[in-house]
Amino acid sequence: MPELRKDPILGRWVIISIERGKRPTDFVSPSQRKKGGGFCPFCPGNEHTTPPEIMAFRPPWTQPNSQGWTLRVMPNKFPALQIYGDLNKAGEGIFDKMSGIGAHEVIVETPEHQLSLSTISLKAVEDVLWAYYIRLTDLKKDPRFKYVLIFKNEGDAAGASLEHTHTQLIALPIVPRTVKDELEGARNHYELKERCIFCDIITQELEDTKRVIYENDKYVAVAPFAPRAPFETWILPKRHESGFYPPNKDFSGLADILQRVLKQIDRILDVPPYNFMIHTSPFYDEINEYYHWHIELMPKLTKIAGFEWGSGFYINPIPPEEAAKFMREAKI
Amino acid sequence: MPELRKDPILGRWVIISIERGKRPTDFVSPSQRKKGGGFCPFCPGNEHTTPPEIMAFRPPWTQPNSQGWTLRVMPNKFPALQIYGDLNKAGEGIFDKMSGIGAHEVIVETPEHQLSLSTISLKAVEDVLWAYYIRLTDLKKDPRFKYVLIFKNEGDAAGASLEHTHTQLIALPIVPRTVKDELEGARNHYELKERCIFCDIITQELEDTKRVIYENDKYVAVAPFAPRAPFETWILPKRHESGFYPPNKDFSGLADILQRVLKQIDRILDVPPYNFMIHTSPFYDEINEYYHWHIELMPKLTKIAGFEWGSGFYINPIPPEEAAKFMREAKI
Repeated sequence: MPELRKDPILGRWVIISIERGKRPTDFVSPSQRKKGGGFCPFCPGNEHTTPPEIMAFRPPWTQPNSQGWTLRVMPNKFPALQIYGDLNKAGEGIFDKMSGIGAHEVIVETPEHQLSLSTISLKAVEDVLWAYYIRLTDLKKDPRFKYVLIFKNEGDAAGASLEHTHTQLIALPIVPRTVKDELEGARNHYELKERCIFCDIITQELEDTKRVIYENDKYVAVAPFAPRAPFETWILPKRHESGFYPPNKDFSGLADILQRVLKQIDRILDVPPYNFMIHTSPFYDEINEYYHWHIELMPKLTKIAGFEWGSGFYINPIPPEEAAKFMREAKI
Repeated sequence: MPELRKDPILGRWVIISIERGKRPTDFVSPSQRKKGGGFCPFCPGNEHTTPPEIMAFRPPWTQPNSQGWTLRVMPNKFPALQIYGDLNKAGEGIFDKMSGIGAHEVIVETPEHQLSLSTISLKAVEDVLWAYYIRLTDLKKDPRFKYVLIFKNEGDAAGASLEHTHTQLIALPIVPRTVKDELEGARNHYELKERCIFCDIITQELEDTKRVIYENDKYVAVAPFAPRAPFETWILPKRHESGFYPPNKDFSGLADILQRVLKQIDRILDVPPYNFMIHTSPFYDEINEYYHWHIELMPKLTKIAGFEWGSGFYINPIPPEEAAKFMREAKI
């Protein structure tokens, strides 16, 4: 019997169409992530083909926009939003619009074309998290921006137009709809219970254990109760933290769990394309009691079709309890 | 300069990243809709390979589940939801779930494997709309269902697992999230203005004309102000109608505009994969003053990636005014 499950934060339902006995290999995406050849603007030696770098981790004796870096951040060469200008909010009859002001940056995570977040060193993953944090903190100073969405598209099917591993961020003059909905759901729960709904979920999941994928001292990775996609995974700090910042100036625990989960997914789903997104509190309400920052990770295994477009619901062919079990048992 | 535009019903923002001078061919999907060979369960002669038909348009001298039909409706062989059983709403700690009760049906629109909604006769399109209406009216009688979502996936990239043209419907015990959000947006507007927001939009679009794609006596096709995807098209009745039903027992006007728009899209985008969905009022509130039923049609040309997943916003590389112009000028 299939099951309808409700995400407690968003109120979004998913259909878990329990086809039991399926193995992870039944979900393997037809398009693996591949690292081929050809010209790559993110490879060392081609620094001049990208917009000038905003920051980089590089030895002090190297020059900006030259080789020697281990991580590099640049504006996106084809930005979705434009950094210069005013918001110019305007109406058009019944409609509302504003200038497409925002920042669109690219974080190149390693100079090595063949590597990915699951195969670079743990120290390099920590550096990537630091780069996220530094850019977030810098963009916060711009009064035009309310939010920075950090997201990663890995593999062509997941929307990456370049195969050299990289993360993107978009700074926005408005809070994204999904985050707004999460904030609202979390606020409603807080008003009712005076507790963070994510903290409540974490407590229940850690007691229950069946949807827990991995945990270390500070973080837990779970298959959410109502996942949109097979093997969807959330990484959350165990302690209440409303915003993405390094607790005690230390990202080692987060680097450990992020890389661990990516290795598990690569192992059981044969290096699938994937997306992940960081959801954190908006700049204007960064420290609060009701919202809990987290990473949402989704391997790209299914298609969005008419039912999903028309309903906002998702059909997921594998229960999260089974997905979590496969993930836990992955030999990495 | 890119533009941020807000959908007035949902409050959803999209980024129109205006890359001017692009031609429709720049958006052509790498995967055309193809009609190949091989065994097809929807072709005449193979009626025994599908679940028994629920209804069919067929001459009175033919037997159910045999050849001779012009349109055929069956339960989906691999349903996302199950038709038999009770809802059994239950909690699991903080979480909510219920049995996956629902109907999942397939409407095979023509016996001809090579044809599609844009190439069958206009009379056959009318028949398809009648089939939608008859199934909707029948499923309404089941007190377990609150909503029926009618949707079409055409082409593999749009999620169709069989290439023989067909529509699907899913009857649900809950109102889909997207429809709920639309109802809420429409209700808010009605409370403020005592007018239907869709009627207001139609009035403005018909005066403005720049986003109008096609109109006939009773219906209008527009490129919405804040479209999620290139060449997204909405078809709406010009007069206020809250639910999907045949005005004066006549679907000819709707058949005309639907097929016309599909022909335009096939022409300028080279037979792209697409999805369309019918949004109508829920069963329990079918006749009302604030909601306006409509068809949302989206050619499948772009990928959903981390930004869209994480934000609920969309990046659209072509302004709807330009898309509408290309559509209007399509030689069909």
